[in-house]
Amino acid sequence: MNTNDIAVKMVLDRWFASIKNFEALLNAFSDEQLQREVAPGKNRGIYLLGHLIAVHDDMIRLLGFGDKMYPELQEAFLTKPDKVATEIPSVAALRAMWTSHNDALTKKINGLKPEEWFEGHTAVSAEDFEKEPHRNKLNIMLTRTTHLQYHIGQFIFLK
Amino acid sequence: MNTNDIAVKMVLDRWFASIKNFEALLNAFSDEQLQREVAPGKNRGIYLLGHLIAVHDDMIRLLGFGDKMYPELQEAFLTKPDKVATEIPSVAALRAMWTSHNDALTKKINGLKPEEWFEGHTAVSAEDFEKEPHRNKLNIMLTRTTHLQYHIGQFIFLK
Repeated sequence: MNTNDIAVKMVLDRWFASIKNFEALLNAFSDEQLQREVAPGKNRGIYLLGHLIAVHDDMIRLLGFGDKMYPELQEAFLTKPDKVATEIPSVAALRAMWTSHNDALTKKINGLKPEEWFEGHTAVSAEDFEKEPHRNKLNIMLTRTTHLQYHIGQFIFLK
Repeated sequence: MNTNDIAVKMVLDRWFASIKNFEALLNAFSDEQLQREVAPGKNRGIYLLGHLIAVHDDMIRLLGFGDKMYPELQEAFLTKPDKVATEIPSVAALRAMWTSHNDALTKKINGLKPEEWFEGHTAVSAEDFEKEPHRNKLNIMLTRTTHLQYHIGQFIFLK
């Protein structure tokens, strides 16, 4: 195993471990619990769930895996803060979306060869990537892992 | 820049960006604010600050940079949960420790060559490292970055 492959393994391990942490909490919380704010005046569990699906859905695009699966979530869970969108999916619907989405994303991630992770992501131009080769697909995984952990730190407060 | 150097840059960039996020909050909060719980019944700001210093202090040891600077924090901020230790440093003292510690750690981090990040950390045996080469120094940076982000997600609730 060369150091490239090691670096890829390290980042993907952290991603999958973080997903596992989040899913353990998600499965432990009832639908009713997810309707609560994680702290007084802060986001509700349901918002964080929708937000994470929306952010991870954009990874599909950034990693060149195809089109977003749930572009309709963007408005309610990314553009708008919690409690602003008047119609959002039910907790049950979001749970189903999370599972379908994460299964699809996992398959795509596992299908990429180590060296492909060092290719530019789809939001960086060839010219910029030449100068900033860290703007690669692996960096998308890394920044989304830290984003996920940030919200897990909040989500766990529903306990 | 080869892909090794790129991977190291990516991880260190995330570390330093996370430290910057945390420090921006730390500097924005008053001592009195840091005495509050981040959410009802959860850790106080002062505990999270002490906890992060203690965890980052252990990185000094794991990365082979020398001895911990503040081993006395371990008991109150790692072994014990919040509100259990009867005597803890003041917020002012912890702020000073954070700054001294982070300055020292930053210098050490910046002094390491890219290839040295792929060496085993000090808590893995040569034999295990042979089989599990991802247990390297860079992985310490990665796991502590996700740990830091997890707590930043909570610390920000003091706002």
